[in-house]
Amino acid sequence: VKTELYTPSSIGEAQEIIERLLRRNCVIIIAGNMKAEYEGRGASRLTPGDRILIIKQDRAVLLHRPEGYSPINWQPDTSAISVKTTSEGLKMIMIRKTPREILRVVFLEPPSITVYHDMVDQGSFIEYLDEHEIRDILFEHPELLGEGIKPVEKEKPLGDAGYADIYAVNKNNEPIIIEIKRVNADHNAVLQLYRYLVEYKKLTGITAKGVLVAPGFTKQAVREAIRLGITLKQISIRSLYEQYYKKKTKDKELHSLLDYLGVKT
Amino acid sequence: VKTELYTPSSIGEAQEIIERLLRRNCVIIIAGNMKAEYEGRGASRLTPGDRILIIKQDRAVLLHRPEGYSPINWQPDTSAISVKTTSEGLKMIMIRKTPREILRVVFLEPPSITVYHDMVDQGSFIEYLDEHEIRDILFEHPELLGEGIKPVEKEKPLGDAGYADIYAVNKNNEPIIIEIKRVNADHNAVLQLYRYLVEYKKLTGITAKGVLVAPGFTKQAVREAIRLGITLKQISIRSLYEQYYKKKTKDKELHSLLDYLGVKT
Repeated sequence: VKTELYTPSSIGEAQEIIERLLRRNCVIIIAGNMKAEYEGRGASRLTPGDRILIIKQDRAVLLHRPEGYSPINWQPDTSAISVKTTSEGLKMIMIRKTPREILRVVFLEPPSITVYHDMVDQGSFIEYLDEHEIRDILFEHPELLGEGIKPVEKEKPLGDAGYADIYAVNKNNEPIIIEIKRVNADHNAVLQLYRYLVEYKKLTGITAKGVLVAPGFTKQAVREAIRLGITLKQISIRSLYEQYYKKKTKDKELHSLLDYLGVKT
Repeated sequence: VKTELYTPSSIGEAQEIIERLLRRNCVIIIAGNMKAEYEGRGASRLTPGDRILIIKQDRAVLLHRPEGYSPINWQPDTSAISVKTTSEGLKMIMIRKTPREILRVVFLEPPSITVYHDMVDQGSFIEYLDEHEIRDILFEHPELLGEGIKPVEKEKPLGDAGYADIYAVNKNNEPIIIEIKRVNADHNAVLQLYRYLVEYKKLTGITAKGVLVAPGFTKQAVREAIRLGITLKQISIRSLYEQYYKKKTKDKELHSLLDYLGVKT
């Protein structure tokens, strides 16, 4: 991330820099002695102190004190930001149009300005486990799917229908096709699995059983599953995570840190 | 606020800088391409992306993406932070002891490090109005206190008892001593006002009436007030703010911004 620091020597210079940066795609952090006023969901004022004002790429605005995890003021997005030199200092007015919220700040001395250019974050936020990890745990621990199930293949290709998460057999060696969802499954998930079963029959001439695995099922999914003879299997992703994935402090570094803190591991 | 920017050219150099800064009283912002794992109130992972990690003076930790007002991960305070050079990159483990929470981040390339030294924030957060502003509004609008009340003096000295917020007289020219609280008043507030009345009597030989003004009163305060013959007057600080204080977009700058946004003022 390309980072630059400006330490302007006057309020006017600070104004110029911030105005220029506001026309670019960047995260701007302005730090210095300042005061603030807010009107919107309520109204409040903050008497002078050293704080950092964070303006994100989407113009979300956060005002942070040097301590505490929560911002003392914030706006989810800002429709307009004005920057002005006044007798008191560098005044910034940040307006959110709907609902109307106004944050006014005054930096009482030339602040430092840090800018992070063109940050790109396409990363995904995964709670507990992703679908591949759930698949791998179920492949290793097929007892979670039911008695006597033996997994045979992951990502089984099934012609035009796509790839089934797990292909397995039961104790009578009858084929089972397993589809996994990490969020509540709706009727589309049932129909997707049904297409695998139809394709499997077309390819092999054998009728496979279908098992749809998910943390929950919509009413429509349950209805469709009954109609199509598909088995539904409920799992808790949190339990899978806690039983089979959680790092039991396997980090050496973490272990010594916990030791140092006197925390039992 | 003394601000410094470091742009280390290697992971090892970044580690050294961060370890050194962690021994000082400062806010540290580390920015770069990174991934994260969290275990505590739940568990989650964040695949690689450009983000900023904020470590505050009290070691509250916030992880922010380039957009959105809310952090993607945070810890209210951190008991220990370790920094390590690994084959993947710069690894930081942040542990909160109780309740136990662990945030692991890995910067996949040397991050930029911005440091804000010795920030001091003694400022107070005032919701709506402070006591002096409430006093001034009531002094200007005594009808809010009751019919026929005429304010005479603010911060009336009353010997050892201190200063009464407002000294007034009623339509019969009888003295009234008014004490204002901006939060719910308890029995101590009633006793404080009673001390003013006792002192007033001692100084002048005249018995004044007492009025305690607050947004609310504890049960004990009500009992004491009845016992001591003190009048309680409830006010809404929010209404006082909205009726008598709110800036009706008197800022020229704000006015033109709202115009620009097409917001009626």
